Amino acid sequence: MENGYNEIPENAPEHCPGTQSDSAGKADACQGCPNQEACATAPKGPDPDLVEIEKRMENVKHKILVLSGKGGVGKSTFSAQLSFALAGMNYHVGLLDIDICGPSIPKMLGLEGQDIHQSNYGWSPVYLEPNLGVMSIGFMLPNPDEAVIWRGPRKNGLIKQFLKDVDWGDVEYLVVDAPPGTSDEHISIVQLLQVTGIDGAIIVTTPQEVSLIDVRKEVSFCKKVGLPVLGVVENMSGLQQPLTDFRFKKVTEIGEETDVTEWALQYMREKAPEMLDLVVCGEVFDSSKGGATKMCMEMGVPFLGKVPMDPHLCKAAEEGRSCFADQKCVASAPALKKIIQKLVPNSASETSSVDNSA
Amino acid sequence: MENGYNEIPENAPEHCPGTQSDSAGKADACQGCPNQEACATAPKGPDPDLVEIEKRMENVKHKILVLSGKGGVGKSTFSAQLSFALAGMNYHVGLLDIDICGPSIPKMLGLEGQDIHQSNYGWSPVYLEPNLGVMSIGFMLPNPDEAVIWRGPRKNGLIKQFLKDVDWGDVEYLVVDAPPGTSDEHISIVQLLQVTGIDGAIIVTTPQEVSLIDVRKEVSFCKKVGLPVLGVVENMSGLQQPLTDFRFKKVTEIGEETDVTEWALQYMREKAPEMLDLVVCGEVFDSSKGGATKMCMEMGVPFLGKVPMDPHLCKAAEEGRSCFADQKCVASAPALKKIIQKLVPNSASETSSVDNSA
Repeated sequence: MENGYNEIPENAPEHCPGTQSDSAGKADACQGCPNQEACATAPKGPDPDLVEIEKRMENVKHKILVLSGKGGVGKSTFSAQLSFALAGMNYHVGLLDIDICGPSIPKMLGLEGQDIHQSNYGWSPVYLEPNLGVMSIGFMLPNPDEAVIWRGPRKNGLIKQFLKDVDWGDVEYLVVDAPPGTSDEHISIVQLLQVTGIDGAIIVTTPQEVSLIDVRKEVSFCKKVGLPVLGVVENMSGLQQPLTDFRFKKVTEIGEETDVTEWALQYMREKAPEMLDLVVCGEVFDSSKGGATKMCMEMGVPFLGKVPMDPHLCKAAEEGRSCFADQKCVASAPALKKIIQKLVPNSASETSSVDNSA
Repeated sequence: MENGYNEIPENAPEHCPGTQSDSAGKADACQGCPNQEACATAPKGPDPDLVEIEKRMENVKHKILVLSGKGGVGKSTFSAQLSFALAGMNYHVGLLDIDICGPSIPKMLGLEGQDIHQSNYGWSPVYLEPNLGVMSIGFMLPNPDEAVIWRGPRKNGLIKQFLKDVDWGDVEYLVVDAPPGTSDEHISIVQLLQVTGIDGAIIVTTPQEVSLIDVRKEVSFCKKVGLPVLGVVENMSGLQQPLTDFRFKKVTEIGEETDVTEWALQYMREKAPEMLDLVVCGEVFDSSKGGATKMCMEMGVPFLGKVPMDPHLCKAAEEGRSCFADQKCVASAPALKKIIQKLVPNSASETSSVDNSA
């Protein structure tokens, strides 16, 4: 077997798959194309779009990509809460969602059904706060239930357009929420943004080995394309919530269940009242192999911290709210805050203001 | 804004993005291609590979795709356990993993590090049991930590090869574990398999709205490409485990934590021993909007059932074991079994044998 790679050639015109494979793949992709020879010898000039992107990004100070190996690890939740937190610190923030098949960002910022407007300066992001602008394919679909069935080249075209045509204004942090994996969108966003400088990537994962396998791939992708890894966040790192937030069941040997929540609470109040103040912690995903901490040491990338699985954080994400706005996310908000402090230099003195962000 | 679709044209040669977009997208993708005109007028004949695929699939009776809108919802875990269960019912089963960026199937079947062998009849799957053969890109990568960075066309080429060149033998059920979303791989697998007949797709989701948004897209994708939806599985539908499996913490007002598990267990033994027999249930993902049940009713697709979040199932997946092999997965295995009984006609009488599968 060959080594499984598709090296990214310099100046590859993204519309032609024939330039993107090894010789075997190329022959396969170009089979039957009457342009095979002319294409192979055609001069490949610099992409004029890159010049436009560079100009657009002149006033965007920091660019952070949020990546994950697997989906469903909370990458979009993290991107959303990072943006809320940075905006709460009074930075001007742009949040760009390039997950074209499943854009979650509009929902997670409470912006479903919003439209993008066009001005003389380009596409205007949707503003949640005066200093928090959001852009997502989700804003451009007339029916959110219908699938976006796009092959790679078209997705790349849209990502280019997002970078070229969105009028972000003066922005201190541009947070880019990428789809999971290492695919067309990732090659495109890195190739297109690299001329403008990227601070690096944050990789979000869950603790179990089956997720970490994919994170290792993501780290190797970053090394391959020269993208610094700012660090790894271990999300859903155990469930933690007050005992009294759970329901209680009696289960018989043959699997019959009875809900006894009322009885159990009363029983504890009478017999063991100190139980009522306890917080319960359980591991949902197996981290017996060492979790993200160990993986980071092995791969030589920074470990940013753990965020416990917190139903209140899930609910905040569902409802498009900042987890820093109230005191409900007791298990997750302090953990997220610590991680963000590591990412934003000199933020320790400013982070108290995170608590007040809307 | 245009409607955001990329209709799949009949006989589109998959290497040319110019045939896959609306006119605007086409102009963009083909810009600068010296072959533009010749390409547009070139005759597009039937794909000879389809004939080969049809021949290969002659002895494969049922073909089931396992899809999900979002990643991380347990799609691969479901595919793996479905395959274990079918094999346990003495069916001949093939499991094909086409998640090229993050193939989890080798790990979930305990087959990491295995190799594919080539025979005169094609590629041989890796056999876990004499009646359970597995194929995955994961078997073809020399270094599991390195990223597979492939653009769409190359991925499509590999999927075609999987369908054309794998010698499955006589198989009753071919379970195809697809990557999340609705992208190149999905268009390819459906287009390539459709000539041979597909039973349909099972869509796996979690209960929260942010996941269901993507399931609606997945259902619309299936309708668009004419793929029957066999049903929707709601996974991670609440956490359920014995109270004594948790750890207990005291948390002070300023967030300081002390582990008091030993004390709490002793306290309950003395004061409230009946607590020790209880099972605790918590909702991790918010399903207050009605979850998958309601979504299925709205979209007119069958609801197959709920599988609770079960740390023992996660552990079985991590270790590549069948959840039906022992009695540990008390919360999830019976739920999975009920779902599989709905999928496999006349299986009710045979399912007792699932318990004995390895």
